Amino acid sequence: MPAQFGRHQPMLDAAVAALRLRECWSPFPEIPSGKIYGDCAREEGAAGFAALKDKPFDLPGHPETHRLGAEVSPFGGDLGITYPAAPVGGLIAAAEAARPAFAAAGPQARVGVCLEALSRLNKISFEMANAVMHTTGQAFAMAFQAGGPHAQDRGLEAVAMAWDEMTRFAADARWEKPQGKAAPIVLEKHWAIVPVGLSLAIGCNTFPTWNSYSGIFASLATGNPVIVKPHPAAILPLALTVRVLRGVLAEAGLPSDAVLLAVDAPGAEITQDLATRPEVKLIDYTGSSSFGAWLRANATQARLFTEETGVNTITIAASDDFDGMCANIAFSLALYSGQMCTAPQNIYVPEGGIDTDQGHKGFDEVASAIVAAVDDLLADPARAAGVLGAIANPATLDRLARARGLGRVLRDTAGEGRIASPLILALTEDDAACGDECFGPVSFIVAVKDADTGIARAADLARRKGAITAALYDTDEARITRAIAAFTQAGVNLSINLTGAIYVNQSAAFSDFHVTGANPAGNASLTDTAFVTPRFRRVMWRRPVH
Amino acid sequence: MPAQFGRHQPMLDAAVAALRLRECWSPFPEIPSGKIYGDCAREEGAAGFAALKDKPFDLPGHPETHRLGAEVSPFGGDLGITYPAAPVGGLIAAAEAARPAFAAAGPQARVGVCLEALSRLNKISFEMANAVMHTTGQAFAMAFQAGGPHAQDRGLEAVAMAWDEMTRFAADARWEKPQGKAAPIVLEKHWAIVPVGLSLAIGCNTFPTWNSYSGIFASLATGNPVIVKPHPAAILPLALTVRVLRGVLAEAGLPSDAVLLAVDAPGAEITQDLATRPEVKLIDYTGSSSFGAWLRANATQARLFTEETGVNTITIAASDDFDGMCANIAFSLALYSGQMCTAPQNIYVPEGGIDTDQGHKGFDEVASAIVAAVDDLLADPARAAGVLGAIANPATLDRLARARGLGRVLRDTAGEGRIASPLILALTEDDAACGDECFGPVSFIVAVKDADTGIARAADLARRKGAITAALYDTDEARITRAIAAFTQAGVNLSINLTGAIYVNQSAAFSDFHVTGANPAGNASLTDTAFVTPRFRRVMWRRPVH
Repeated sequence: MPAQFGRHQPMLDAAVAALRLRECWSPFPEIPSGKIYGDCAREEGAAGFAALKDKPFDLPGHPETHRLGAEVSPFGGDLGITYPAAPVGGLIAAAEAARPAFAAAGPQARVGVCLEALSRLNKISFEMANAVMHTTGQAFAMAFQAGGPHAQDRGLEAVAMAWDEMTRFAADARWEKPQGKAAPIVLEKHWAIVPVGLSLAIGCNTFPTWNSYSGIFASLATGNPVIVKPHPAAILPLALTVRVLRGVLAEAGLPSDAVLLAVDAPGAEITQDLATRPEVKLIDYTGSSSFGAWLRANATQARLFTEETGVNTITIAASDDFDGMCANIAFSLALYSGQMCTAPQNIYVPEGGIDTDQGHKGFDEVASAIVAAVDDLLADPARAAGVLGAIANPATLDRLARARGLGRVLRDTAGEGRIASPLILALTEDDAACGDECFGPVSFIVAVKDADTGIARAADLARRKGAITAALYDTDEARITRAIAAFTQAGVNLSINLTGAIYVNQSAAFSDFHVTGANPAGNASLTDTAFVTPRFRRVMWRRPVH
Repeated sequence: MPAQFGRHQPMLDAAVAALRLRECWSPFPEIPSGKIYGDCAREEGAAGFAALKDKPFDLPGHPETHRLGAEVSPFGGDLGITYPAAPVGGLIAAAEAARPAFAAAGPQARVGVCLEALSRLNKISFEMANAVMHTTGQAFAMAFQAGGPHAQDRGLEAVAMAWDEMTRFAADARWEKPQGKAAPIVLEKHWAIVPVGLSLAIGCNTFPTWNSYSGIFASLATGNPVIVKPHPAAILPLALTVRVLRGVLAEAGLPSDAVLLAVDAPGAEITQDLATRPEVKLIDYTGSSSFGAWLRANATQARLFTEETGVNTITIAASDDFDGMCANIAFSLALYSGQMCTAPQNIYVPEGGIDTDQGHKGFDEVASAIVAAVDDLLADPARAAGVLGAIANPATLDRLARARGLGRVLRDTAGEGRIASPLILALTEDDAACGDECFGPVSFIVAVKDADTGIARAADLARRKGAITAALYDTDEARITRAIAAFTQAGVNLSINLTGAIYVNQSAAFSDFHVTGANPAGNASLTDTAFVTPRFRRVMWRRPVH
């Protein structure tokens, strides 16, 4: 048994068990505490990040013909880091050269590499938090959790799923067929796990690790070399990841080039070239539906796993905790300035208002209470900074500015530079604006005839335009049952009556399947069986036993 | 628990266990014996078939605007059966109308229907044998086995795989997240199995049930209504299947239209229209790579599962049982006149000959011995008829006639009407003819420089043109190891040194994965996890537990 595998097998076994149970589980503590990560972990992480800045990033042995990198922190300042870059042909050739040895290494060795790499990534979670913060604009606490332990959870989840699937059927069998009074026919049979080819991971700007680890680790565990193509504005978190993986690969005696970094520059992107190379058989993609459609039409040689555009909704039908509801919604709208793929956009409220524990509330009262809850959440500047973070992409600020004209402004956005608090508009259900994603800190409170209409609108939108999350506040159990049926048929996960410190935005590895694959918001679910099965095949040889 | 499910749960549990172990297992006896199937089963089956002939086929409640059907037995005579036919739009509408109730029925009810239907199909195996025989040209014994119990095995295998996967993760969970000294956050979570939509099964002429049951039963178990589109020359076996399924559905209180028959006429095929309908989300297809390519290019709204064209090979490097080898190969070439997707075509033999238990044999001696073994096998007319069967499609006879000019004839084909014994030609490895599939009773004995060249040629051909089977005869364990690696990398299952009553053509459900999905001979494997996972999705709802 490979040493790396043996060392981490208890964690792997626990992860496989957790997958089945879907309960709360993680081996990677989410609290950025010195008690857990070491007394000096925070300072060491900051120092580690500082030491990376304004230097060439070191990736020993990586293909390199030139250097690229122009990251700018959304909190201000150039990172000044350059990364090794190489032509697409050179990257493909290097990955292809690594392929046979990586395939031949077998599941245990590769899973061992993945588990060891995840453990090492966990140890550098503070450094990663800084890298994620200063490329995505996430506030530190979120950058730590989402960029560190929660991303590691998603990576481990994918490794566990891949391992469970690769070992699901016997690798060897004795097939003995009775022949009446004659001697039975006896064959020995053996099955090999055969990886499908090169894998391309296309990262996004907002969650470079969380959204990419599932695909990267699923492909590595199943034996496919991975070319990691980061968003040009968020290279560092994935460069750190690639460095850790290459180091672990080398220690295991496997080719480091089983993981490569494909850096490009804005305006000179190499993604289309990479994605359509015949050697590339798997693509994991997070991003817009428009580029998703391009990949579907053009990268037909590869199996495509996507998370794409969607419109997430909240339907408010009634509440037995009106204040708790408003506070919960306010946090979901404000967190990372609405830049999560799980953030709600459309909030459907009956035009005649709703019943609550505080009596009947008219539409305007509900809208005002949500606005007030957002204001309250962001009243303290330090807390506001910790919740909002910064805007990752300047294009989001442009979209935000344009969005102010889409409806009646209930709450205007505020902020300077890359900081932007939620813009909240009132719309009617016929306004076209609420029919598409408006990515960023923009939400629409939409008046609907009644609660059932809101549910129908939300479910229909999920079915047509995609949605990753839906939320419902209601006290009528019969209507809740109808809503569950409607959202289930629309293929969107539903959260009901969330209050307190749990939010519709949150998706926990080992329990929540992130994205259902059942509506246009993506065809892949993190991490179900369908996410790993297309990454390898089984091939048999059999012969008689004499 | 639905009654049908409860009745068959022991069989289901045994099937799931068998999937994992990959040992020899089946609940459906393959021997056409009165002791097993009832003293009068053979006569009743013949009578049942006779009673179907020259009549309209009864499918109660099935959409019908007109009647179609012009099957001709390859053994002579029109079947004279007409089937209910309807426009594509009508079939789609009927399937769509059945979809919600069928989805809502849930896994247990649907799996119960599948298991009950398979049990009933097993009971009519003799009638089915006649139907398969007189549409495919298979001799009776093969028609019984392949059309009856072995097809039922593949159906059950798919149901077991689907059940195992649908129940792989908890359907409900209590997610409890500690909050330090505060009370934990507790959510209840529930997941529904959501089918993806309509499923289309495109049957083939030669194995209408065996090649279609996996897809039909996998889709039904996972909740997708299935439109069964038989080959116009082999409708009856699938019409019988559809009738059994519709009856069982009705008894279970489910819509019969969850299974529909889509009959068409040669020259007026409806397959392209059906395959490109937006409601069709799954397609199971067995047939030529050219139509497979058409489906890939045009039916982009659907997930496609295929078995396509390939070139199967035997490489002869050495033998310690020369007579046994030749007899085994002869049977594989002659069985059903080479019309199995698993039948070998190219036989690579070193030009300098091979070492055997009978001393060195030159190329011509090896070729002559194979020819003699075929002649010997077919010397007795009754046995010849039982092995060869008849040619399913007249186009195969035309191809056979043209093939006689492709090389040096070692054994000419013989037969009358639709009967055709193997044509065996000698080729050199540079002859173009051995680079493509020549479907039917045609095989090429190809002279190669040496055994390793033969292995390399065979593996390369599998990689480029596809192959479902490969066989090797050898006594050199080092070369056998090299061959295993080469064929594994080419993605083709390898059988080594088969002699006696086990043949490279044979693929046993619950043990052999039929088609690897790793080369152009098909993208689907019967039945691995990847065959069932794209047929459904999981959708969650969650809410706090107070």
